[in-house]
Amino acid sequence: MYDNLFSEDVGSFFRSPVREIFKKVDLNFIYSFAGGYPSAETFPLEDIRQTVSEVIDRYGAKAFQYGATQGVPELRDALSRRYGVPVERVQITSSSQQGIDVCTRVLVDPGDVILTSSPSYLGALQSFCSYRADIRGVAHCPDPECFREAYESAVAQAVSEGKRVKFLYMIPDFQNPSGESLTLEERQVLVDLAKEHGFLIVEDSPYRELRYEGEHIPTMYSLAPDHVIHLGSFSKIFAPGFRLGWAIAHPDILDKIYVCKQSLDLCPPIMDQYVAAEFLNSGRLDANLIRTVELYKGKRDLMLSLLEEHMPEGVKWTHPEGGLFLFLTMPEGFDAVKFYDVALEAGVAYVAGEFFHPDRSGKNTMRLNFSFMDQERMKEGIALLASLLKKELI
Amino acid sequence: MYDNLFSEDVGSFFRSPVREIFKKVDLNFIYSFAGGYPSAETFPLEDIRQTVSEVIDRYGAKAFQYGATQGVPELRDALSRRYGVPVERVQITSSSQQGIDVCTRVLVDPGDVILTSSPSYLGALQSFCSYRADIRGVAHCPDPECFREAYESAVAQAVSEGKRVKFLYMIPDFQNPSGESLTLEERQVLVDLAKEHGFLIVEDSPYRELRYEGEHIPTMYSLAPDHVIHLGSFSKIFAPGFRLGWAIAHPDILDKIYVCKQSLDLCPPIMDQYVAAEFLNSGRLDANLIRTVELYKGKRDLMLSLLEEHMPEGVKWTHPEGGLFLFLTMPEGFDAVKFYDVALEAGVAYVAGEFFHPDRSGKNTMRLNFSFMDQERMKEGIALLASLLKKELI
Repeated sequence: MYDNLFSEDVGSFFRSPVREIFKKVDLNFIYSFAGGYPSAETFPLEDIRQTVSEVIDRYGAKAFQYGATQGVPELRDALSRRYGVPVERVQITSSSQQGIDVCTRVLVDPGDVILTSSPSYLGALQSFCSYRADIRGVAHCPDPECFREAYESAVAQAVSEGKRVKFLYMIPDFQNPSGESLTLEERQVLVDLAKEHGFLIVEDSPYRELRYEGEHIPTMYSLAPDHVIHLGSFSKIFAPGFRLGWAIAHPDILDKIYVCKQSLDLCPPIMDQYVAAEFLNSGRLDANLIRTVELYKGKRDLMLSLLEEHMPEGVKWTHPEGGLFLFLTMPEGFDAVKFYDVALEAGVAYVAGEFFHPDRSGKNTMRLNFSFMDQERMKEGIALLASLLKKELI
Repeated sequence: MYDNLFSEDVGSFFRSPVREIFKKVDLNFIYSFAGGYPSAETFPLEDIRQTVSEVIDRYGAKAFQYGATQGVPELRDALSRRYGVPVERVQITSSSQQGIDVCTRVLVDPGDVILTSSPSYLGALQSFCSYRADIRGVAHCPDPECFREAYESAVAQAVSEGKRVKFLYMIPDFQNPSGESLTLEERQVLVDLAKEHGFLIVEDSPYRELRYEGEHIPTMYSLAPDHVIHLGSFSKIFAPGFRLGWAIAHPDILDKIYVCKQSLDLCPPIMDQYVAAEFLNSGRLDANLIRTVELYKGKRDLMLSLLEEHMPEGVKWTHPEGGLFLFLTMPEGFDAVKFYDVALEAGVAYVAGEFFHPDRSGKNTMRLNFSFMDQERMKEGIALLASLLKKELI
């Protein structure tokens, strides 16, 4: 009797494989390279306890009442100062996943084209798909001219079909899933294309502050503040349990998001926002971030050396300068979805790469997370995964 | 250049008038009967401080990590016990507003019919409108036969147009905005109609536990558990700043909501859910609820007597047995939207009734909240509003 519910094409295709795994298995009993989970070590429990108490002292009942749809002024101000943008360009979101979803809802009608890299973040693809967007993935081409041509021809293709590109979705820093970043030149190419063709860029940037080597590259937002919606998140630099993120964009765009968010959930959680604001303003967030970067750098280095040590010939991987992930490519013919049953049976989890490809290519790829597990378990887990792969690839 | 953004018909018509007011004026400087705000007195600050600390002791890092999309098991279990429903029928939502929005997103395609009472909750109308639903309001008819006929004919009308009714949205207990409740007989009529015609009922029930007189009436969910999605909220019985609610429904429906919520925001805030679970399990929530009901009963009684004392002839109002609101009807020809400028200028705010009517009728009505302001300010505010109305109605 429940026909016409959230349609099957959306529901069945875009169930999150990560969340489906976690529905079935307890993370404590497997080697999990699957989620994008921060390390539990990075959550500053005592500082949070203390800050909650300070928030109750300072704000009293206000911390538990309804609040502004845009977010509490104290948190918007703190982010405005941190990132050097006017406060009227800052909207707090109830998670950066909501930031992605609300942009799509505000911008996209069914059939509209969204361009993105291929691979791209699967939570974004899920959201795009649920709005029946026409998602077009563009494979990465390292040569600058070829990079430009790939995106230009994707835009031209959409236009030739009488479609309009609504936005380009990119994660320029330490991308999920590949771990790779766009060069400044590549960012400039995309920004120029957006200006020329009148579409927006949604710049999803949850990992930007987790850099372990190299120099920061300017955000796409800084290159074209009126053409880019920049999405940030507290999930990787503070704690995902707070479900807080932000959108930085032209006030005209934020006004639309504001109206949309009224009917979505009225406002973000209030006490949590004050806690985040206090964490930023007191310097606790930056102090914690320094420790987090150091921890993750060690984990990334360890994972790279473990892959080097254990992986069979024919397996390749990316070398991320930051973030939480790296991306493995197995020889053609390998099927990471099929292999998943073997791996999970043996007690090791990853996410198959095809879920990150809008056209479901990349069957011989997988995403590995290096932030979540402690180093001892990482050693055991990678050795186990490698031994399973060796058997499979013989 | 930002054409095709969240369309103007949605954005301009369904901006929340309440939230627009609060964008402009400081609640501390006006007599506000406008919002659906709980009294700040009801927030148990010290108990919350203590409970946060207990949650950090008990759950540690788990309280700040990502969690299950359905909500943390502890909170789902606590609600399952409280309301006597199987835990697989409980989904935690990031606010009950999200509950409304996600039901609409999961069930409605553009042009689908949603039936509701007229007046009805404007936050729900906003959400329905944003999905381009065809919203049909049914005026309340106190005679049982006439009540049945009104809803039957609305269903028949939709069917005759070749449309399908996707769901009926109702707030059976102490409705927002009227404050009135559906009788058991009326609930049964609607449930029977839903079964007969194969549509669902979304039963929005944030005020149910705030009863000041009379006997509890069974929920529509209890009358037909497989045909009703019951939405609950911590906002009025604990604190709205936590932005936590729940949906109780058939597991097939919750499975669709689960997939949808993955792409909306992954999961509800974690620490906040543990705090709510501890509050329920420790009995603190019930103890606080007893105090809240006592406080609000006094406020309702006071407001009723103030209206009796001050309001000019020709003004009528409802007598709610619970909840946060009552509804005023002025003589025909009065325009509560126009009068709003006069009232706000003088320092008193309400919400014009037409915003609660899908067809924008009810121009001579207004909603008054009696939970938010303290009793001294309520006295001054109602006297002021009444004196302004007297001038207007001469």
